[in-house]
Amino acid sequence: MASRGALVFLQPSRLPLDPYLPPASTSQQQQPPPKPHLTLTFATSLDSNLSLSPGVQTVLSGPESKAMTHYLRSKHDAILIGVGTAIADNPSLNCRIDGVGGYGGEGLEGQPRPVVLDPKGRWEFGPESKCIALAREERGKAPWLIVARECEEGKRKMLESVGGRVLQLPASEQESGRYAMDWREIMVCLAEQGVRSVMVEGGGSVINELLSPKYFDLVGSVIVTIAPTWLGKDGVQVCPDAREEGGKRIPVSRLRDVKWIPLGEDVVLCGRPNGN
Amino acid sequence: MASRGALVFLQPSRLPLDPYLPPASTSQQQQPPPKPHLTLTFATSLDSNLSLSPGVQTVLSGPESKAMTHYLRSKHDAILIGVGTAIADNPSLNCRIDGVGGYGGEGLEGQPRPVVLDPKGRWEFGPESKCIALAREERGKAPWLIVARECEEGKRKMLESVGGRVLQLPASEQESGRYAMDWREIMVCLAEQGVRSVMVEGGGSVINELLSPKYFDLVGSVIVTIAPTWLGKDGVQVCPDAREEGGKRIPVSRLRDVKWIPLGEDVVLCGRPNGN
Repeated sequence: MASRGALVFLQPSRLPLDPYLPPASTSQQQQPPPKPHLTLTFATSLDSNLSLSPGVQTVLSGPESKAMTHYLRSKHDAILIGVGTAIADNPSLNCRIDGVGGYGGEGLEGQPRPVVLDPKGRWEFGPESKCIALAREERGKAPWLIVARECEEGKRKMLESVGGRVLQLPASEQESGRYAMDWREIMVCLAEQGVRSVMVEGGGSVINELLSPKYFDLVGSVIVTIAPTWLGKDGVQVCPDAREEGGKRIPVSRLRDVKWIPLGEDVVLCGRPNGN
Repeated sequence: MASRGALVFLQPSRLPLDPYLPPASTSQQQQPPPKPHLTLTFATSLDSNLSLSPGVQTVLSGPESKAMTHYLRSKHDAILIGVGTAIADNPSLNCRIDGVGGYGGEGLEGQPRPVVLDPKGRWEFGPESKCIALAREERGKAPWLIVARECEEGKRKMLESVGGRVLQLPASEQESGRYAMDWREIMVCLAEQGVRSVMVEGGGSVINELLSPKYFDLVGSVIVTIAPTWLGKDGVQVCPDAREEGGKRIPVSRLRDVKWIPLGEDVVLCGRPNGN
């Protein structure tokens, strides 16, 4: 029987996904690879929306997809999200698959490291934030925060008190006022911290950046869940910036090694960036 | 061996689709049903784009999906498209499945009636337009044009010379200057012409209207092909207008009886409107 609150994702469902997961680490590996395996994963509606509107969490996919997400988390050293998602969802960012640490397993075995990309330090977490509370209860690892400017002392202390960490990276200010970080630097930074695999879960800005030609080569595999619903206009949409070549519009990116796996009412698409 | 230019779509691929197709007509049916079975079908990218930009035809799906589209056409009395698609694509709008009329079969057996929804009479077709030429060569039925205002005499004559027809229906002018027709009236009009089933293939405006709560109950089944690519911003997108209930955003529409069928690199989603 599964332990309390644990999710079960059975072997037959795991098998088709496994070729898209990062290689299992072996004791022979003396040092981490130069950059982590990046798995980009998210769930959309048929009209490519992640949620009905900015800041609103929308449950799109069914229970089977939820169990899958937690299985995927168990196979990665880290999970990364953008600060918008951290603010909107107050996410747990742990892994609740039966048998991992805190859910029937020992210590924090199989728990991924939550990483929140927060260049401006906008995330106002506290002891009651789910992922801080879970870290205190030893049912998840404490989050790392990637910031571009000095972190408030109070926030840093709270993070460190549960075992978390603040990492600082340069950012460039965009016309929109947004701070943009270089994804290559983020990957190098994570590799330096010993992270061999990272699952990027959202939100919209993060996903659209990684789908752009500038960064798509960093992505090792893509796992998208699609639910049979339309959310409609003004949602948070996965739709990267347009791409031109020789003054002509061309598709932004494409997947190869494609597999479509029906899962409950949803479908799961697995693939690798064309060109990688 | 298939006849020249004909497409083949084999029985194993047909089987999972058949429950979503209109019932086969029998000789017992003395008169057509009050409204035709409407199958809504289209192909999008992962970011729900039909094409890279307005007026540009974009090949999204693979050869298997093309054969499927023609199989679907063979199972409908009519195919309907909006005028934007007629202008952008110069479409053939016939059925090229091996064994139908013009492709190994007798007469026009199995050929659907092309219907172009053109409220303002914008479509400038001529003898060289593909669907007019195909009608002349008896490899497709001649198109019907649904207009809101008197059709130019020359265009009407050309259409009638190949066996086509002009149908007139009321339209209301929108703020945008667009003429909107009532889909219930369009369906009644087609039923009166003996059409028992119609496959609506696009483009964006037509699809988004039919996905809206106002008209979604008219749809009998939905068949969407999704290709593993992202086209990016500023494309022609399937994304219906937002829906609110009690001042709160809710999903616009959802499918039930869902089936996902991998087909080449693409997936085909079949379903029925939730509520129908």
